Amino acid sequence: MNFEHSDKAKEMIKKVRQFLDEHILPLENEYLKEQRFEDPNWKGWTLDPRVEKLKENAKAAGLWNLFLPPLSGLSNLEYAPIAEITGHSLLAPEIFNCNAPDTGNMEVLWKYGSDTQKEQWLKPLLDGKIRSAFCMTEPDVASSDATNMQATIVEDGDDIILNGTKWWSTGIGHPNCKVVIFMGLSDANAHKYLQHSMVLVPLDAAGVKVERMLPVFGGYDAPYGHGEVSFTNVRLPKTAVIAGLGKGFEIAQGRLGPGRIHHCMRQIGVAERALKLMIARGMERVAFGKPLINLGGNRDLIANARIDIEMARLLVLKTAFLIDTVGAMGALSEVSQIKVIVPNVACRILDQAIQLFGGKGLSNDTPLAAMYAYARILRLADGPDEVHRGVVAKMELMKYTPSNFPKGKEK
Amino acid sequence: MNFEHSDKAKEMIKKVRQFLDEHILPLENEYLKEQRFEDPNWKGWTLDPRVEKLKENAKAAGLWNLFLPPLSGLSNLEYAPIAEITGHSLLAPEIFNCNAPDTGNMEVLWKYGSDTQKEQWLKPLLDGKIRSAFCMTEPDVASSDATNMQATIVEDGDDIILNGTKWWSTGIGHPNCKVVIFMGLSDANAHKYLQHSMVLVPLDAAGVKVERMLPVFGGYDAPYGHGEVSFTNVRLPKTAVIAGLGKGFEIAQGRLGPGRIHHCMRQIGVAERALKLMIARGMERVAFGKPLINLGGNRDLIANARIDIEMARLLVLKTAFLIDTVGAMGALSEVSQIKVIVPNVACRILDQAIQLFGGKGLSNDTPLAAMYAYARILRLADGPDEVHRGVVAKMELMKYTPSNFPKGKEK
Amino acid sequence: MNFEHSDKAKEMIKKVRQFLDEHILPLENEYLKEQRFEDPNWKGWTLDPRVEKLKENAKAAGLWNLFLPPLSGLSNLEYAPIAEITGHSLLAPEIFNCNAPDTGNMEVLWKYGSDTQKEQWLKPLLDGKIRSAFCMTEPDVASSDATNMQATIVEDGDDIILNGTKWWSTGIGHPNCKVVIFMGLSDANAHKYLQHSMVLVPLDAAGVKVERMLPVFGGYDAPYGHGEVSFTNVRLPKTAVIAGLGKGFEIAQGRLGPGRIHHCMRQIGVAERALKLMIARGMERVAFGKPLINLGGNRDLIANARIDIEMARLLVLKTAFLIDTVGAMGALSEVSQIKVIVPNVACRILDQAIQLFGGKGLSNDTPLAAMYAYARILRLADGPDEVHRGVVAKMELMKYTPSNFPKGKEK
Amino acid sequence: MNFEHSDKAKEMIKKVRQFLDEHILPLENEYLKEQRFEDPNWKGWTLDPRVEKLKENAKAAGLWNLFLPPLSGLSNLEYAPIAEITGHSLLAPEIFNCNAPDTGNMEVLWKYGSDTQKEQWLKPLLDGKIRSAFCMTEPDVASSDATNMQATIVEDGDDIILNGTKWWSTGIGHPNCKVVIFMGLSDANAHKYLQHSMVLVPLDAAGVKVERMLPVFGGYDAPYGHGEVSFTNVRLPKTAVIAGLGKGFEIAQGRLGPGRIHHCMRQIGVAERALKLMIARGMERVAFGKPLINLGGNRDLIANARIDIEMARLLVLKTAFLIDTVGAMGALSEVSQIKVIVPNVACRILDQAIQLFGGKGLSNDTPLAAMYAYARILRLADGPDEVHRGVVAKMELMKYTPSNFPKGKEK
Repeated sequence: MNFEHSDKAKEMIKKVRQFLDEHILPLENEYLKEQRFEDPNWKGWTLDPRVEKLKENAKAAGLWNLFLPPLSGLSNLEYAPIAEITGHSLLAPEIFNCNAPDTGNMEVLWKYGSDTQKEQWLKPLLDGKIRSAFCMTEPDVASSDATNMQATIVEDGDDIILNGTKWWSTGIGHPNCKVVIFMGLSDANAHKYLQHSMVLVPLDAAGVKVERMLPVFGGYDAPYGHGEVSFTNVRLPKTAVIAGLGKGFEIAQGRLGPGRIHHCMRQIGVAERALKLMIARGMERVAFGKPLINLGGNRDLIANARIDIEMARLLVLKTAFLIDTVGAMGALSEVSQIKVIVPNVACRILDQAIQLFGGKGLSNDTPLAAMYAYARILRLADGPDEVHRGVVAKMELMKYTPSNFPKGKEK
Repeated sequence: MNFEHSDKAKEMIKKVRQFLDEHILPLENEYLKEQRFEDPNWKGWTLDPRVEKLKENAKAAGLWNLFLPPLSGLSNLEYAPIAEITGHSLLAPEIFNCNAPDTGNMEVLWKYGSDTQKEQWLKPLLDGKIRSAFCMTEPDVASSDATNMQATIVEDGDDIILNGTKWWSTGIGHPNCKVVIFMGLSDANAHKYLQHSMVLVPLDAAGVKVERMLPVFGGYDAPYGHGEVSFTNVRLPKTAVIAGLGKGFEIAQGRLGPGRIHHCMRQIGVAERALKLMIARGMERVAFGKPLINLGGNRDLIANARIDIEMARLLVLKTAFLIDTVGAMGALSEVSQIKVIVPNVACRILDQAIQLFGGKGLSNDTPLAAMYAYARILRLADGPDEVHRGVVAKMELMKYTPSNFPKGKEK
Repeated sequence: MNFEHSDKAKEMIKKVRQFLDEHILPLENEYLKEQRFEDPNWKGWTLDPRVEKLKENAKAAGLWNLFLPPLSGLSNLEYAPIAEITGHSLLAPEIFNCNAPDTGNMEVLWKYGSDTQKEQWLKPLLDGKIRSAFCMTEPDVASSDATNMQATIVEDGDDIILNGTKWWSTGIGHPNCKVVIFMGLSDANAHKYLQHSMVLVPLDAAGVKVERMLPVFGGYDAPYGHGEVSFTNVRLPKTAVIAGLGKGFEIAQGRLGPGRIHHCMRQIGVAERALKLMIARGMERVAFGKPLINLGGNRDLIANARIDIEMARLLVLKTAFLIDTVGAMGALSEVSQIKVIVPNVACRILDQAIQLFGGKGLSNDTPLAAMYAYARILRLADGPDEVHRGVVAKMELMKYTPSNFPKGKEK
Repeated sequence: MNFEHSDKAKEMIKKVRQFLDEHILPLENEYLKEQRFEDPNWKGWTLDPRVEKLKENAKAAGLWNLFLPPLSGLSNLEYAPIAEITGHSLLAPEIFNCNAPDTGNMEVLWKYGSDTQKEQWLKPLLDGKIRSAFCMTEPDVASSDATNMQATIVEDGDDIILNGTKWWSTGIGHPNCKVVIFMGLSDANAHKYLQHSMVLVPLDAAGVKVERMLPVFGGYDAPYGHGEVSFTNVRLPKTAVIAGLGKGFEIAQGRLGPGRIHHCMRQIGVAERALKLMIARGMERVAFGKPLINLGGNRDLIANARIDIEMARLLVLKTAFLIDTVGAMGALSEVSQIKVIVPNVACRILDQAIQLFGGKGLSNDTPLAAMYAYARILRLADGPDEVHRGVVAKMELMKYTPSNFPKGKEK
């Protein structure tokens, strides 16, 4: 296992860090002062020219689409520290065109899209001109079990007709969101891995309706937002299907691996930021005659946070290394491992940082509360903790087929 | 220790439970459907006639002001299960005129108010005609250490002049909020327990300005809200001072004891509601061929929740019993004990319930997310966990003055 | 719920506490100096005349057999604080003739024994002249599932013949152990609650062999010990059967309820002792210029221990109150609740106390290590945590038969 | 960071693993059957010819002294997986001559010993002919604070005279133990890092007395044992001092780094073994109609164990890599990080494995109970968790000298 980076990667990492410090954190500071993260009138959210400007700068500096190996020339291992840096601010990922769910959608189109699909949707996504959403989870069934899916895709001549309701479609509130990837049941009688399909649906197609935006602990995660969307007899040509009918499950598997590791890389950055803020607060606030950091068990919290972040980061790097060297299928257990542990570590450190900040930590005067909502949702999104623990356990038990046990039961 | 209730109390408990089931939970259900808890335009929140109607009904049924022993004839021990029931819905406390911070403010006025103050403010509060706020915490200092307080109260002839900035003033956003209790430093040279005073300040007094409302994880806790309020040369007659200058610390001590136990009583109800919702969800949702409740460690969560709620409730009852029998000063450690443990238990059960609900649990389709915000803020409000653990430890160590140790060090 | 004690009970509690302080703790101190708890040659353990002397004194003072309500005139609620006090020292229970497993065995004989059985075994047990063991758990099957039991009881004319191997038969190493209660399968074809029987087996009966004594983390829990015992064609007259063939399950249910609550009562005392020792150590040892108690998070540990002990004790009292008022069957969930939580709380506080004592805490220079072994074994004995959590969850879910849910699923 | 191994290292790792599987685990199995780990008469413990034979075999196979880079040609990073493998069995380390405290003592002699000292003590240690102990911790003071040390070393002409009492001197019970390294105060007036010295003391020197052996939870950790040793006017020539008077602190720093990382490497193996045993048990035992592994939250335990082991191992590897590349001083924080987390992870997995084994897990029929004692003692030995957390926090805060904070306090 070799975690070394190429010189090019080191250069990129340095530049992204510098860009964050010089441009993004100061803008975040303005946002915090404007209380902009929680503009209550969030549907009216419009493009912020400051963000658009930084996107242009990042693109010009070559700090753009770094998530996509064939474009960036960076391995997953090399992208990891970059994604981590973008985790330091909720503003950062989009500025580098590396934000979920667009990254996952771009990867799907890169790998499975037809030339027409690439021209129509991938190109503007890679250019940062449009945004997209992913419509998979449904309100009426336990979506952690994919076989529960109720949305349908019915063939009708050269067309397909979509019906169903999806929710937690992240990014659908973005003013630039133009397209969603819809997953549905296209053949209930096929082999269980061939029943589903994915379809590119323009957000303005007839029959598509964003019913409402969903809050997380009351916040709307602007400018992306999480939407509930109904699809009522949405008619599209078959060319909107990605990679052909029945390929939904296969694409989903491929999509979720990198999506999950990207989230985890960023969450390492979230945890580092929380630790940094916690320390700064603990050193500057005074109570009972001492800086908070020297009261009670606060230094223990710092130590435990440092230990947990170090360990979690190393496991993310190992997972990235495995994906680079033996592929996502060879890293099944590891992807689930980090999906469980990293958001939990981030949640705990954020919660402790909030506690040290007092009421301020719960408000929007620091990025902590919004980051907590992001970390907390990741304990559910792309598979809840429980499902991923199940995967890890299953892979572990598979090492022990009866013949793997030494002769005579081990005592 | 006797936890028996009088027949009158039993009757009251039964009626409050019935009122909750028949009137409040159905209204809550309407609220959830209207997504009303998070009306983004919360400043425009107006009185809801449905709530006002229920308040009238509750008053008519004698289920009113039950928190105040001299009025209700109920001991703290007897009020405990009633407050617990009101914890089942965030709508309930105000409907019974038992919501924070009004209860604490009414108690202060009952005990320390002048006749004029009682007539002007206590009467309409007891009638539920107006609401109030409590202005103690400050943004610029660690308010867990009361000696840090910066707001000032300066005498000027028959007047006093108030200056300072307060935040986390809960209830200040309520459309009926008319008065706040302001705490400030009136004599920095006095004995440390005689430096502070409390003043009744009409919300429309010149120089009082609600600078902004503060979100908790993005939610605004309507219709109460938590405000940041500036006081700039607010001039009031000395008759606005409660119990005389220098009495602030004494009143605060008296105010916070009951306030804390009321919060804890309600949090037991919060935890019970979370458990009930978690079980309902676990029994009705199916994944991988089984009800969620039968998957993995979910039944263990139910068991642990039941155990923790039982224990926490008993400790709250013991604390109430002590306040009734030996007074709040005799229950110093116990009040801090429940202040630490109860919101933490509630937070954990709520978090687990949210996990079982998936994305729905994070949204406003269930009361869980708003209840989590309430429970989480209680780990900070009225003293953070850390301070209360410090009190418990201090009281514990005080049992062991050197002479209390057996001769010859115990090994 | 009324936790008041009668005057008689208060008097008893006071006397037991005094006896502990004046006689037992000083003897324990001698034991610790002699390192007697871990006499490596434990099979040669002989009666300690100092213990025998204290037994006589306790009997003379009327502090004898207090566990048995019909004899002592104390309710379970009143016995709780007495049992707690005996938990302060591992020496104490036997000195008051209140140690497991004899108490459980005496209860069985009191309720189900024939006159002859009572004369032969109950009388000397009540007199403290002999000790006994209980043989239920088996090495070759998961004994947490009673239906796995393999030991057999076969009728042969007026006799029965016993076969099987048992282990974790506590008390079988005591020099005075004369009899065991053996549980086995007497009719595999009967209703599942009528398949088992209990038999009184003299330890010197032909075919009974103590194969070996079992250590717990290396310690042998002298003078009681936990044995592995084989029963090979042990022939006894049918009069040795308790309450008739097929009554084993019924008796076991009745035996385990009080047995479990007695263990939990004592564990509260164990936890209190650990806390007391931890505080004493923390106040007298100095490192880095401060008493240990003032370093890092140590005061938080004290606070958390106090909170957990208070809550756990109250839940034990509630359980005792329920057994007194509605019987053991009405306290099924509560008995399992305390069986889970109390030993876990004790284990955690003991572990923290050990940590504060450093190496000394792991040795036999304090009672902590031996107490840890006792608390740890209780997480398995009389049903592992997992089984008891299962009972609590099952009882909880039973409240929610479909018809118990409000019309329209609660959201 | 590059975790690749050389071909030679890979070969070694494979051979050590094979040796463990073919020779050591089968012998361990014999030990478990003989209940030999807890021979109550442990002082009479004599060399086991089976172990001596395996030592000869290991030496012949070149699997000997692999812990010492200059001898083995292996880096710390390359030794890590070897040490991990030896953690699978408590018998393994000595068989490869890699057991504590001898490894630490050999390193001290290698680096600081005079030629005479090397000839007299290092050579037979490297040959595995003798064993040694390290005498640092004292019973009467908090030894976590080195400045508390009371033992003295007084110059007297060409001699020195030693006085003091030490305990937790591991290995002093081994039949081959011939020498100890004694640390004491040689000049109380010197700079605080120059006050202490280390002396080589033959175990048979006049005035050295092993007062007693100390149990850990009742077990004596044969054949090594932990002793309490008194030194009364022990007169030795000055040539017995290692590296000169006043060098004690410097040597201790150098000794503890590698000692700590070796313990942690082995603890990863301990945790792996516990997980393997837990899975085997969970798959073969049946209760309530299912293998235990499929009951309740047991699979979650497997998943969490796998995740924690992966993370802990990676952090150990990173620490080894740092020691190899920037030296022990550059890995100060990391050494403390693993010293905290690894034994805690091992303790937790062992505790859960014990729980799954039931009573058997607490006995000596599996290696779990003895391994738990080893892991638990490591939370205290070579610095308690609390001290190491303090080091990690201190190093973390040092990153934030005031000038390191961005201009304008970060919010």
